[in-house]
Amino acid sequence: MTLTDTDRTVHVPVGPTVPSSGALRPLGLGEVRITGGFWADRQRVNAAATLPHIEHWLEREGWLGNFDAAAAGALTAENRRGREFADSEVYKFLEAAAWQLGREPDPQLEERFRDVVARVGAAQEADGYLNTNFGRPTQQPRWSDLEWGHELYCGGHLFQAAVARARTRPNADDGLLGVATRFADLICTVFGEDGIRSVCGHPEVETALVELGRVTGERRYIEQARLFVERRGTGVLRDIEWGRSYYQDDIPIRQATVLRGHAVRANYLSSGATDVAVETGDVELLEALGRQWANTVAHRTYITGGQGSHHQDEAFGDDFELPPDRAYSETCASIASVQFSWRLLLAQGDPRYADLIERTLYNVVATSPSADGRAFYYANTLHRRTPGEPADPETVSPRAEASLRAPWFEVSCCPPNVARTLASLDSYVATAGDDSLQLHQYAPARIATTLGNGERVELTVETEYPREGRVAVRILRDALQPWSLQFRVPSWATGATLSVPGEEAAPAAPGAVTVQRLFREGDEIVLELPVRPRFSAADPRVDAVRGSVAVERGPIVYALESVDLPDGWDDVADAVIDADDAPTDDNGRVTVRLGRRVEQETRWPYGPREDDGRLETAEVALVPYHEWAERGPSSMRIWIPTT
Amino acid sequence: MTLTDTDRTVHVPVGPTVPSSGALRPLGLGEVRITGGFWADRQRVNAAATLPHIEHWLEREGWLGNFDAAAAGALTAENRRGREFADSEVYKFLEAAAWQLGREPDPQLEERFRDVVARVGAAQEADGYLNTNFGRPTQQPRWSDLEWGHELYCGGHLFQAAVARARTRPNADDGLLGVATRFADLICTVFGEDGIRSVCGHPEVETALVELGRVTGERRYIEQARLFVERRGTGVLRDIEWGRSYYQDDIPIRQATVLRGHAVRANYLSSGATDVAVETGDVELLEALGRQWANTVAHRTYITGGQGSHHQDEAFGDDFELPPDRAYSETCASIASVQFSWRLLLAQGDPRYADLIERTLYNVVATSPSADGRAFYYANTLHRRTPGEPADPETVSPRAEASLRAPWFEVSCCPPNVARTLASLDSYVATAGDDSLQLHQYAPARIATTLGNGERVELTVETEYPREGRVAVRILRDALQPWSLQFRVPSWATGATLSVPGEEAAPAAPGAVTVQRLFREGDEIVLELPVRPRFSAADPRVDAVRGSVAVERGPIVYALESVDLPDGWDDVADAVIDADDAPTDDNGRVTVRLGRRVEQETRWPYGPREDDGRLETAEVALVPYHEWAERGPSSMRIWIPTT
Repeated sequence: MTLTDTDRTVHVPVGPTVPSSGALRPLGLGEVRITGGFWADRQRVNAAATLPHIEHWLEREGWLGNFDAAAAGALTAENRRGREFADSEVYKFLEAAAWQLGREPDPQLEERFRDVVARVGAAQEADGYLNTNFGRPTQQPRWSDLEWGHELYCGGHLFQAAVARARTRPNADDGLLGVATRFADLICTVFGEDGIRSVCGHPEVETALVELGRVTGERRYIEQARLFVERRGTGVLRDIEWGRSYYQDDIPIRQATVLRGHAVRANYLSSGATDVAVETGDVELLEALGRQWANTVAHRTYITGGQGSHHQDEAFGDDFELPPDRAYSETCASIASVQFSWRLLLAQGDPRYADLIERTLYNVVATSPSADGRAFYYANTLHRRTPGEPADPETVSPRAEASLRAPWFEVSCCPPNVARTLASLDSYVATAGDDSLQLHQYAPARIATTLGNGERVELTVETEYPREGRVAVRILRDALQPWSLQFRVPSWATGATLSVPGEEAAPAAPGAVTVQRLFREGDEIVLELPVRPRFSAADPRVDAVRGSVAVERGPIVYALESVDLPDGWDDVADAVIDADDAPTDDNGRVTVRLGRRVEQETRWPYGPREDDGRLETAEVALVPYHEWAERGPSSMRIWIPTT
Repeated sequence: MTLTDTDRTVHVPVGPTVPSSGALRPLGLGEVRITGGFWADRQRVNAAATLPHIEHWLEREGWLGNFDAAAAGALTAENRRGREFADSEVYKFLEAAAWQLGREPDPQLEERFRDVVARVGAAQEADGYLNTNFGRPTQQPRWSDLEWGHELYCGGHLFQAAVARARTRPNADDGLLGVATRFADLICTVFGEDGIRSVCGHPEVETALVELGRVTGERRYIEQARLFVERRGTGVLRDIEWGRSYYQDDIPIRQATVLRGHAVRANYLSSGATDVAVETGDVELLEALGRQWANTVAHRTYITGGQGSHHQDEAFGDDFELPPDRAYSETCASIASVQFSWRLLLAQGDPRYADLIERTLYNVVATSPSADGRAFYYANTLHRRTPGEPADPETVSPRAEASLRAPWFEVSCCPPNVARTLASLDSYVATAGDDSLQLHQYAPARIATTLGNGERVELTVETEYPREGRVAVRILRDALQPWSLQFRVPSWATGATLSVPGEEAAPAAPGAVTVQRLFREGDEIVLELPVRPRFSAADPRVDAVRGSVAVERGPIVYALESVDLPDGWDDVADAVIDADDAPTDDNGRVTVRLGRRVEQETRWPYGPREDDGRLETAEVALVPYHEWAERGPSSMRIWIPTT
């Protein structure tokens, strides 16, 4: 889609988030293309296996059929299938398919996409309302259960699907954007200044309404998002067993200091509030969100980037309450966290936001799907004490337990959320400014864009990262004027260097490093990141992993998996490590020397301090955390106790 | 109640558990009387404040009124009050009142007791069925929801109330025993060999049926309990989100190796299975239960004796999964654990069962009620990171959170469970054999009983335990023949001594120590227990408290509470302790020297290992854990990180 400005053509980026202002302009699918490596592999599996897998299960479970029954006037409370938010999984599938079609045409997928859109659209009611769970005879009335009904949440996912389609196929005649705007118009009437003065129990519609406003130019949607953001935290929803903080209705957003409550809700809400702050120029709100992000990262985030310590309410715990063995770290929370960080990065430009995105992508988003793309983790524990049962590939899992990657869940938010994220991942790689281009994520890629000053930039990124630390940018086009190329230097990358043609490699401190020059075709700029394995310890206030270390290598967190233990060592619980004995590294294959405690007797486990007793030791390979549980049931731990 | 044997009168003990055989015979309320000290104080508050408090809330919440509405034929699904198990709280109140009336007559309480019994009895249906939640027009049919309906569970509590009344007032004309047996007869018909081949989702009826069989001589009830025990674990209940282990329907009881699933359910079931094993002479089952107890204590029990690591499903975690900050440690689970340990103690005689009972009573059961007996903890966390909100004494708490003692809960199992336990606590103090008497719990007491061989024994126990370690037994009556007096020596009591008249004090190793002699009136036998404060560390496999110590003194676990920190130290999260710097003790007032970390910046909390940085130190008083949160909102921790 192109908009004609006064004197030059401005490309609207093809991606999920296109703010009207901010420190950085995102580069969309047409400007960045991941061409190989870690993420391209996963994008291939996503397109070839995960999308058909999701469509199969949506059909099989009847969640698509709900729309047909609604269109036929035959849907009732009794025959509707799935949970109250089942519609949203259909919309996330549509969004994922739209991004994938935006990456590469696929007539079969295009046909399936249009078919699903038609079935969805047929279920829309005359006034624009669209939800299969409310409003029909025998069903609850519309808007009668804002706490748990997820009507606005489902609407938000519909809008995001429509945005994806509008950005990737602006002239499509499938009607999806019309379906979305008709429902959005109804929502603005029902929940506007003079309407129901409340919000959805599950934030999501806020960020979606802003984006729908951005794509359509309809300011009313952004204003409605602002109303939702301002109302929340004033006690508009019912108090519940877990407290109003569960859905962030405890404190007005601009007064909060840290994310709390349900981790997915908290991050979607923060994303939407950031969008509202950017579109309304609300500096106070934006700064409050930045502080909340910083406190959440410093006090409530796992080493994997995962968030959410409680199984009970899928929620953040208190500061430093980060037990690895009860980590919930929901896949969707990590995706929502990436969205929040990305919005702050675009607004403020601070590379630490991209640091967290990288960590979260490699260690949570990449951990959820199996290598074949047909099974998923819902929760991503950092410590599994007993080998899990493998999930039946033909059965819906009732459990969001950390023990298994399962093909589908009763609450199946995570699989389509992973799919839409992978299908749009190219758009998180780089941004541009008036005379600058920023590389945030390192993958083999081709980038071609026009900077704000009209300068045309084309380059490739060549790298084996994260297996190797070399990131080489090759300029494909002579510059007409100098521009600057910025590389993120991850916070762990002490000792990084940057080299430009004709100069010696220079140290590049963690943060960002910039080269400004009149680039020539063929110039190669090389960032060298030290991706050696390293031990990391936690802030001493993280009680749950005191006296333990984790092994990281570049952005990758490693894990000890019981299938890698020597014969006779059957339990990761017995392993200890000497933190003065550095890991060895063979091109990403990391091994450590572990000790194993001699078996202890069955007795009261508290008393005078004792040492570890006799230890036997062995060299044991660690596995990248995102690859764990691919070789059958296993116990696993990221944090290993030190001797 | 007395039964005439062939040539002498045998007293049936007046207590909740009276096995027909076993290593030890319990001494009931008529034989043991706690006369002062820690537990007598709590029994006084229980009678004066807690029992009226419970009756008030049962009336106010309409849980008693449900019975009136049922009797009037006016009860419906719509107007019934409370959760599905609300009836059971009425029955536990009756049981508590019955034990209290057995301890000391109280005409007013007697009248209230009879009034409640009459209201309950009036609701019983013609065929004996009694439950206010099922079977009426608009309600679900009887026995239609065995997983969650709690019908048999409620019946079990009814039976236990009737047993308490029958043992304390064998000739009462209130009709409670008849109400119980009519319902029990119906259950035996409906769930017998030819009936519904299933069990209750919440075990309880098993132990209650055995005791009802013991008190009535009706073997059929014991046989029904045996059927319930044998059926469980064979997959007779539905699979649910948390798995069938939640209600122990995953593995047959005799094949299990450790308690698992919902901690209250697991312990009630184990109690009932022990009763069945004893009454049917099932040695294999009894040994299996002993092994499960040992593994559970060694691998799945908190230092307080509390059990249950998960908030989500109120359940045990895996072995060594014992996070102090997410300890659920439900009050009812600790009471059920005391019941299980007590039954094994009676069956097998091993003093370690009494060790766990003592620890659990002092550190969980005594922690739940407030000093005034009108507010309760449901969950008993070992680490509270943020000061809680005080609970409104006029409001039902929707939350079983660890933050507050609350007057009443939507699920209010714990208050009446504490009440019935304290009212019958005298019966857990001592047991007898043919020619022996065993002291299991140390409190000022008067004991008078007849041993199995007919020898009459009368003695007093004088002690300030647990504040002081001296336990003096004074013999009040010349013996006709030698008998033996056994003292439990707690596992922590290294250095204990025992002295008898005319001999030097002799070492008494942890376990038990016995004096056998021809006791004379006035003999004083003195056990000296070393109740100095001590540091305890956990088995290194308990990840969550690695590198930390707890302070214990005798059976009492101490805690650091933020209200005791010096000015400027506002958070227990910053405190560290030098474990080589012994606590000081001033007659039970324990102080330690703590260090406090200098504030750290807000940054990514994982990286290279660092030391604690600069510390400032101060002497800080600890508080017995059961006394915490009596001085306003406070953060608290039992486990303190070491420097």
